[in-house]
Amino acid sequence: MNDSMRSKMDSQRRDSISAFFEPRAVAVFGSLQQQGGPGYGTISNMLELGFRGKLYPISPSGGEVLGLAAYPSLDAVPGPVDLAMIIIPPPAVPGIIEQCARKGVKAVVIGTEGFAESGEEGAMLQRQVLDIARRSSLRIIGPNTIGVLNAANGLATVPYPIACKKFMKGGIAYCGHTGLISAHSHPIGPHAYPLSKLCDFGNKCDINEVDLLDYLSYDPETKVIVMHLEDVRDGRNFVATARKAVARKPVLIFKPGRSEAGARAAASHTGSLAGDDRVYDAAFKQAGVLRLSNWREFWEIPRVFASQPLPKGNRIAIIGLSGGGGVVAADAADEAGLEIAIFTSETTRKLAKLSPRLGSNPVDFGPPATVATDPLDLSEEAISLVLADETVDCAALVMHSGLGGALARVIEMLCRINEKTPKPFTVWIDGPLPSVTEELYCQLASRGLATYLDLETSIKALSMTVAYSRIKSALAQEMA
Amino acid sequence: MNDSMRSKMDSQRRDSISAFFEPRAVAVFGSLQQQGGPGYGTISNMLELGFRGKLYPISPSGGEVLGLAAYPSLDAVPGPVDLAMIIIPPPAVPGIIEQCARKGVKAVVIGTEGFAESGEEGAMLQRQVLDIARRSSLRIIGPNTIGVLNAANGLATVPYPIACKKFMKGGIAYCGHTGLISAHSHPIGPHAYPLSKLCDFGNKCDINEVDLLDYLSYDPETKVIVMHLEDVRDGRNFVATARKAVARKPVLIFKPGRSEAGARAAASHTGSLAGDDRVYDAAFKQAGVLRLSNWREFWEIPRVFASQPLPKGNRIAIIGLSGGGGVVAADAADEAGLEIAIFTSETTRKLAKLSPRLGSNPVDFGPPATVATDPLDLSEEAISLVLADETVDCAALVMHSGLGGALARVIEMLCRINEKTPKPFTVWIDGPLPSVTEELYCQLASRGLATYLDLETSIKALSMTVAYSRIKSALAQEMA
Repeated sequence: MNDSMRSKMDSQRRDSISAFFEPRAVAVFGSLQQQGGPGYGTISNMLELGFRGKLYPISPSGGEVLGLAAYPSLDAVPGPVDLAMIIIPPPAVPGIIEQCARKGVKAVVIGTEGFAESGEEGAMLQRQVLDIARRSSLRIIGPNTIGVLNAANGLATVPYPIACKKFMKGGIAYCGHTGLISAHSHPIGPHAYPLSKLCDFGNKCDINEVDLLDYLSYDPETKVIVMHLEDVRDGRNFVATARKAVARKPVLIFKPGRSEAGARAAASHTGSLAGDDRVYDAAFKQAGVLRLSNWREFWEIPRVFASQPLPKGNRIAIIGLSGGGGVVAADAADEAGLEIAIFTSETTRKLAKLSPRLGSNPVDFGPPATVATDPLDLSEEAISLVLADETVDCAALVMHSGLGGALARVIEMLCRINEKTPKPFTVWIDGPLPSVTEELYCQLASRGLATYLDLETSIKALSMTVAYSRIKSALAQEMA
Repeated sequence: MNDSMRSKMDSQRRDSISAFFEPRAVAVFGSLQQQGGPGYGTISNMLELGFRGKLYPISPSGGEVLGLAAYPSLDAVPGPVDLAMIIIPPPAVPGIIEQCARKGVKAVVIGTEGFAESGEEGAMLQRQVLDIARRSSLRIIGPNTIGVLNAANGLATVPYPIACKKFMKGGIAYCGHTGLISAHSHPIGPHAYPLSKLCDFGNKCDINEVDLLDYLSYDPETKVIVMHLEDVRDGRNFVATARKAVARKPVLIFKPGRSEAGARAAASHTGSLAGDDRVYDAAFKQAGVLRLSNWREFWEIPRVFASQPLPKGNRIAIIGLSGGGGVVAADAADEAGLEIAIFTSETTRKLAKLSPRLGSNPVDFGPPATVATDPLDLSEEAISLVLADETVDCAALVMHSGLGGALARVIEMLCRINEKTPKPFTVWIDGPLPSVTEELYCQLASRGLATYLDLETSIKALSMTVAYSRIKSALAQEMA
């Protein structure tokens, strides 16, 4: 196969995956009962999200659901269908896939459980389904999955209530092996995750992490690819694809099943063969993939890549309202391989002019703020001075939500700083009232700041931007 | 000094500290201005919390504040005063301490900053203040502190708004070197931390971590002692006292300033000399102190000690609504030194009877729950079966708040389980709506469950109970 043939095949493969995310028409197979019917749930979510394509509920008994006419079968649907979402008992699935193949459906999400993960009988069904798909160049995500989301067009194949009328369109693509990654399990909408696309692989009978890595690395909406993987089945292909993806955008991977106990659990969860974690670690390093350590990092770290520029170096400034928080942050910075910036004498002088207690890094503007005429003005001046210092590559703000009285002004202040500085920074928030902290967190997140509810993770996130910056330069040099 | 003399002195020292937490009358020195006056803030907090002692605002100009008459000086206060809270500019503090000494005040919290932490001039003032105290057997907490809280009597020397009318009385005592540990910075009230007492050491000119360790180890309200320490000044005394405390109750310590950068930051924050972290680590191990790794653990781990029994061994069951969550939890358990329990064949059989997919650990009752007539009944049966298994010492529940429809039933179910089982368990919660997750978290916390918003920390917490269980047995054997 020559290069142009390979490139054509790659591009065809990407097209086949785009049917999952950009379908013009979607058919939904699954109970349309209002109480817990998965077909009903899926359609209800898509209507709430304002899905911009055609939506065809399929039900042998016909009828109507949420104002949409249900069709007795796929053959009865008048126009073409790009994507089918199937949530019906496993034995009936092969017949439906046959219908889909006949209709020219390009993409099928099989949500139902009870396939390869449940034993030999299910594995046989799964092979049968895949055979039909292969014969008709129809692609499958799943089985055993909640499928896909696309923040840009309101597509959501999730049958469970996601309680959200709109996702924040943004640069993070989430993929994984668990329904926990989806919007019915985690507050993706309310917490304003800047989302491009989301995909739960399920049993990966056809489409897997390599396909998505490749597709998302070319997706102009996606700025950072984040994956939760219980296993990788084709290591060589994965490393080659990941390496190419990493040259374009950061790839962050959380790989559970690291321990023997975890690997056993993964085998019974998705039939994953987790393998030796050191092998994964080496493969990720080779590909330039950044590894996430835990579930919290999986959710919190990507935000910084979606909203902040990459830093030029690893020197961090820590600025905030708490000396004690500064010490904790300094430890976290050191452990993450960041250096505490030593300010220029000019910055030190200017800070000391604001208050004699300021000047060194970490900067604690808590004490001067309690006696300042306008604590917010003082904070803004101090933060701006520090971010402008040439010895500073990135900054972590240690903030406080207060009781909410000055919330609007705090938000405006931080947004102004975010607009002005070309350097990445994160904002950690705590406060006495969870509702106010939550409000500040969401408001800042929805305005494109990298906000954190965990102090150490806010620092670790910055260190990941430094790491990616280095990987990217190294790859660029190699490829030059 | 013989043993009975030493014991008498120890008990006197404890009495002198109890004046900080159980004062019958408190005098407050500090501006009574409604906008940001620290005296006003302190009095307002104590009135809101229903402080059960006498409260005397002191102001040279007299007047009235929040319905209380202000006295022009301490000498003018008619009855005795046990505790004085002082938040006035540093140069005026020595004079006030003299007044306190004359009046027979036993305990003084100096909130004001600008003492030893700010330079030589402040250090001189601090020495002067301490001299007066020593001459009159008056004890000092601070300077540079937000002081103390006592959940049992509504005492709170915090000048900043804490937005809370009541703390949940419980077994956790928090001490530390930062205002971040207090109720104006963290949602101690709203998140239902089961609090006994809280103390911010500040500059530790007089009272320090050793005094509090000793006092709290005898405090019947306190079940677990948690400290944030930027330094320990008298290592030998600390280890001896901590060891005795650990024999009575768990002592958990978070020690920032581990790195060189952190140590430098600590020096400028509270004048702490952080020293080599390996020395601290060895001292903590010698004393049987459990070390907390980060700020999140500082807040989240103690809950399990305040509300749950100690486990008999290290075998964990992981039970929940997510297979993916089970894999992550299994990794975390392994990394924390817990063993995944292998259920008896009877339990396996009974679980399989509930659903053919159940039976192995981690238990994922997500799939059967989606098809069960009553998912909550199924969950309760599965959790109860697992907790009753003799191979299980503790359990981690991987839960989901949903949209809140069945919240009351979920809470009742988990409370019933908590009442019945003699084994410790933790509950991790996530869900699509932060407000509902928060509601479930707070409701469960206020009913004495060990709830977590971070999956890995919910497992680490259990491993800490196992660790303390072992330390306690070892100490008991040694002392027998």
